[in-house]
Amino acid sequence: MSENVFVIGHKSPDLDSVTAAISYARFKNLSENTDIYKPAIAGEINRETAYALERFNIEKPDILLSADGREVILVDHNEFAQAVDGIRSARIKEVLDHHKVDFKYGEPIRFEIEPWGSSNTIIADKFFKSNVELNKDLAGLMLSAILVDTVITKSPTCTDKDKEIIEKLSVQAGIADWKEFGMDIFKVRSSVNELSAEEIIRSDFKDFILKTGKFGIGQVETHAVPRGQFFERQQPQAVALFENFGMRRNRPQAHAVEARIAHAPQVFLDCGQGLHHARGVVIRES
Amino acid sequence: MSENVFVIGHKSPDLDSVTAAISYARFKNLSENTDIYKPAIAGEINRETAYALERFNIEKPDILLSADGREVILVDHNEFAQAVDGIRSARIKEVLDHHKVDFKYGEPIRFEIEPWGSSNTIIADKFFKSNVELNKDLAGLMLSAILVDTVITKSPTCTDKDKEIIEKLSVQAGIADWKEFGMDIFKVRSSVNELSAEEIIRSDFKDFILKTGKFGIGQVETHAVPRGQFFERQQPQAVALFENFGMRRNRPQAHAVEARIAHAPQVFLDCGQGLHHARGVVIRES
Repeated sequence: MSENVFVIGHKSPDLDSVTAAISYARFKNLSENTDIYKPAIAGEINRETAYALERFNIEKPDILLSADGREVILVDHNEFAQAVDGIRSARIKEVLDHHKVDFKYGEPIRFEIEPWGSSNTIIADKFFKSNVELNKDLAGLMLSAILVDTVITKSPTCTDKDKEIIEKLSVQAGIADWKEFGMDIFKVRSSVNELSAEEIIRSDFKDFILKTGKFGIGQVETHAVPRGQFFERQQPQAVALFENFGMRRNRPQAHAVEARIAHAPQVFLDCGQGLHHARGVVIRES
Repeated sequence: MSENVFVIGHKSPDLDSVTAAISYARFKNLSENTDIYKPAIAGEINRETAYALERFNIEKPDILLSADGREVILVDHNEFAQAVDGIRSARIKEVLDHHKVDFKYGEPIRFEIEPWGSSNTIIADKFFKSNVELNKDLAGLMLSAILVDTVITKSPTCTDKDKEIIEKLSVQAGIADWKEFGMDIFKVRSSVNELSAEEIIRSDFKDFILKTGKFGIGQVETHAVPRGQFFERQQPQAVALFENFGMRRNRPQAHAVEARIAHAPQVFLDCGQGLHHARGVVIRES
């Protein structure tokens, strides 16, 4: 009997990360005619992930507390700083991601990065190019993940490949109007009224390591929410937290000096030894 | 008019590296219906590369002296220590390789590693899976590269995928007996009688960076050569050079304490701060 291989996304799992674990494990099991690949999560899921899993009747993966000694496939991230605990003593079998590469490992493994808008775009492309069956529910879940990561195709990270896959998945999932469907998910994602400021930022929190220190940043999407509901009341609170929270968590002396709200998501951080430019990690208005 | 994108392998180019630059540039040009992809080399080619290029009437790529400011695709390597000069100020568009990952770059790019025996196995697989035409000469050149890198399928790095692709390329190239063809190339590769010991080691020299320092190692394949012709006369000379040359070039105080000649290629090096184990970089007997 073969040992399980855990397919797992980053800490503070978001919809793309959790769905990639589920969809890639399914793709690997079906295409290799096995059941050794198990989706797992590295932390509790956020609100829109819970919503999408329930909507498409797909089970929430189990949390993997430590990857120590385990065989793992990393999806939707490749930096160890963002990975499940124990990653340095795990046996990494493979990586599939759409982010920049910052990786070092002692032996050759399958390592696939496509600079597309979502990890699920890469995995859906594999389903469509192979003879592996993609059922209606999983197609719907993957569509949800791509729509969130590409901000319903409005994000600057959205590529033609993402648009092509969104169309194909909509047909497969039997969802006639993917724009309207995307808006539904963003309404869930943005219904932050009953959350504390810390819960908002924690919902998509990632660690980053620069030469000058370690820090963390959370991101909130406010697309599809009436301005009065979030921007005017919640945004200042969220930004303030943004400036303090990442620092409190990791490097007390660091402080954000500027957080520009713009279409191109970007933030400037002063980590004590000069200004750093971190991309894709700010509250953005669309 | 678009700018050229140089497809380039590592320094001290070997047959797999040079052929990967040629074959991947051709694949990209044909599949994207363009001519912007230009194969290039990062140094002078070795003996069996010259032999294979001549045999299949394929032109030797131009040497790219510096990648500074250029758009490049890296093939058959991903570590900057092994790359063309000026790589840190190049615009890297893509990486295709079969070695372990040791890479960091500031933005998401296409990055593809398959842990197969040769870079050309990955590229040939792309030709066979697409509708892009692979002509007889290029198929022969790619077959040569895979046979060298897998030591005619006898290397521990040779996978089932390499064997599958070797069979397919043989048909495409019209080469009936690929084992015999592989032996022909190894005879050229191993005809070292008229070379100096330094030329032998230089012919496949790669730089490696460890925490304790930088060093370089050359590798010589002695497959298909009568023992009396190389092992008894040349090998001691080559090994001695192996112990001195890499050190002289990079880190004078480093010295090899043990170089085991074995089926599993391995070497132990003392770089001044303890013993390091470097894989795949020793003269091997097959």
